[in-house]
Amino acid sequence: MVYLTRKEHFNAAHRLYKADWSDEKNEEVFGKCSNKNWHGHNYDLYVTVKGEPNEDTGFILNVKDLSRIIREQVVRHIDHKNLNIDVEFMQGIQPSVENLAIAIWKRLDGKIPAGRLHCIKLYETESIYVEYYGN
Amino acid sequence: MVYLTRKEHFNAAHRLYKADWSDEKNEEVFGKCSNKNWHGHNYDLYVTVKGEPNEDTGFILNVKDLSRIIREQVVRHIDHKNLNIDVEFMQGIQPSVENLAIAIWKRLDGKIPAGRLHCIKLYETESIYVEYYGN
Amino acid sequence: MVYLTRKEHFNAAHRLYKADWSDEKNEEVFGKCSNKNWHGHNYDLYVTVKGEPNEDTGFILNVKDLSRIIREQVVRHIDHKNLNIDVEFMQGIQPSVENLAIAIWKRLDGKIPAGRLHCIKLYETESIYVEYYGN
Amino acid sequence: MVYLTRKEHFNAAHRLYKADWSDEKNEEVFGKCSNKNWHGHNYDLYVTVKGEPNEDTGFILNVKDLSRIIREQVVRHIDHKNLNIDVEFMQGIQPSVENLAIAIWKRLDGKIPAGRLHCIKLYETESIYVEYYGN
Amino acid sequence: MVYLTRKEHFNAAHRLYKADWSDEKNEEVFGKCSNKNWHGHNYDLYVTVKGEPNEDTGFILNVKDLSRIIREQVVRHIDHKNLNIDVEFMQGIQPSVENLAIAIWKRLDGKIPAGRLHCIKLYETESIYVEYYGN
Amino acid sequence: MVYLTRKEHFNAAHRLYKADWSDEKNEEVFGKCSNKNWHGHNYDLYVTVKGEPNEDTGFILNVKDLSRIIREQVVRHIDHKNLNIDVEFMQGIQPSVENLAIAIWKRLDGKIPAGRLHCIKLYETESIYVEYYGN
Repeated sequence: MVYLTRKEHFNAAHRLYKADWSDEKNEEVFGKCSNKNWHGHNYDLYVTVKGEPNEDTGFILNVKDLSRIIREQVVRHIDHKNLNIDVEFMQGIQPSVENLAIAIWKRLDGKIPAGRLHCIKLYETESIYVEYYGN
Repeated sequence: MVYLTRKEHFNAAHRLYKADWSDEKNEEVFGKCSNKNWHGHNYDLYVTVKGEPNEDTGFILNVKDLSRIIREQVVRHIDHKNLNIDVEFMQGIQPSVENLAIAIWKRLDGKIPAGRLHCIKLYETESIYVEYYGN
Repeated sequence: MVYLTRKEHFNAAHRLYKADWSDEKNEEVFGKCSNKNWHGHNYDLYVTVKGEPNEDTGFILNVKDLSRIIREQVVRHIDHKNLNIDVEFMQGIQPSVENLAIAIWKRLDGKIPAGRLHCIKLYETESIYVEYYGN
Repeated sequence: MVYLTRKEHFNAAHRLYKADWSDEKNEEVFGKCSNKNWHGHNYDLYVTVKGEPNEDTGFILNVKDLSRIIREQVVRHIDHKNLNIDVEFMQGIQPSVENLAIAIWKRLDGKIPAGRLHCIKLYETESIYVEYYGN
Repeated sequence: MVYLTRKEHFNAAHRLYKADWSDEKNEEVFGKCSNKNWHGHNYDLYVTVKGEPNEDTGFILNVKDLSRIIREQVVRHIDHKNLNIDVEFMQGIQPSVENLAIAIWKRLDGKIPAGRLHCIKLYETESIYVEYYGN
Repeated sequence: MVYLTRKEHFNAAHRLYKADWSDEKNEEVFGKCSNKNWHGHNYDLYVTVKGEPNEDTGFILNVKDLSRIIREQVVRHIDHKNLNIDVEFMQGIQPSVENLAIAIWKRLDGKIPAGRLHCIKLYETESIYVEYYGN
């Protein structure tokens, strides 16, 4: 079993808040992340797939195919977007980095033609990242 | 003459567009950077000061003072903000990385207590940055 | 289960040696790391916590709280310090990167208000790091 | 149990292709990676060993010994080499990053004097890496 | 005047040698860089353009146009290629990182539609890079 | 004219203080950098040489020679050392990053066999660096 990882990038705006909380409570819980005019990040996304290398190619799957699938299923839906407003698969979900990683897993699970999805690692800043393994 | 550089970070949302242009023209010129619901970035800001090291301290200026000044004059005004809406010193200015670097120079010029401001280097993504030397 | 990681920094001096070994034996085992006038490093510390995202906030725990706890329990005790002399929780412990990671785990274990401590990852240089999972 | 990782570098040329496939099939499967005049990479190699820190030294094993073993067993055989032609332990193996990581594991397994080999992590570019744990 | 930089990547094989020198002399001068079966690198290319930001767009030039020009004029000719054999604009030129930077300058000079080419910065490894300013 | 840069590393301990100042004044000016039991850093050193590439080799100077000179003249004197105590060429000099860069320039100036020394760039942390051009 070998683990193959591909890195992709996207930029997005978001805001952390609960519509049914007061501004004070949102400010207390989320601080400047609840700024009502939004803020944003450069996200680094690492997708890891596990499997056996093919005998002919030496590939678990062709990393160009992996890159294409990530772009089609994930990046083109969230790059240069507002995570709270523009992204169908984030509707009704608090766009924390934890929840965004889980949502990205769901977008990719079952779409990988060879090997199996193993991990979503998502950097929100160079000092904050999460990892999700599907359960 | 020695050049001393301090790196700071901030995150912000923005949108590139001209209010008096049609949506089509904005889309044509700015592409996905004109998304009307905003997008955002993690910005890395490098501020360079030049001067002679003090004989006693070996410092051009104390880098903790430089950091404090950058945070007071720049970072606290733009971190977790919307560059088009929230930032007084960006009002009426297209928030391209070029214009943001020039605006940051103006915020810091004359505020450095020892040495002289030499360069603003600003990364919008890890693949795009600008440098501005004051003229 | 999601894994959330926060990165912090500190700088410290240290020396690797055994007081009851001869200078020759210390030199043989530890090489230049046993230099009697100390040397030092910029350490990068990654603390990983695991848990379920809160339904309201999307957080395992607020990363600002995680950062505050790491600074209070760890960074303020070792930043700009001598690991052999100044740090109470390293007394009597060889300050190798392995032992320092274990000691940092012990400082943080039981102090995380939500989720559970999962991993301490500690870089001594960009080419050397250790990971410790608590047992 | 602590996990200790050492990073090393090497540069190499390679080509992905099957000798018994047509040029068209090689081009179709491997794309520009099958360029018949070769291309190349700067590889970053991370070798992780697990074990208990020694009571006297605080080391799982001396990281200088780990570095020396990696250089002797791996780096001097592949650095500034052609992976398809020059490297005995890659003969008859498709030099994908997956297969190269497995081959490096085999070179190091059983050669580590303290602790046990845990993981080979190999970057082919900054956006593509694999991990191999020995089975 | 603002300086705008765009980073691009490419991978290539090469060999440093003089055809009219003996193998011994090539080995003496170029060491393992003269390996007759080639070796290779991941190159990081930074292209800097200088100019005044446009009043409407805030751009010196649209960075997407800069990226497209670099890819058309440079990257598609050298990515996944052998610099000694495959690249027309390197014919008869020793493919040192110095000479490659000069050749890339010549490919781009006069092709930038707004602003002027200022600097080619080219990394051969993370420890070796050159800068060329056109004379 | 091409500018060639080589990166090297070293680790060192130091302390910023004036022996003829009170502890209070040292604390006030240097803060935790004056800790009497030292602290330390991983320094990244970039040495830039400028010159014309040799017609045969394509080199300004062989980067392996540049690396060897930096190690002989600089790194072996300061790596794993105490900058205040162990380093002859820092005697009587406040070991700020500014002064250390100037001292490294003096160690290398006149020692480069081809091309001319252009710049010493020295990182004390990933957020603080200085550049010195010889005057």
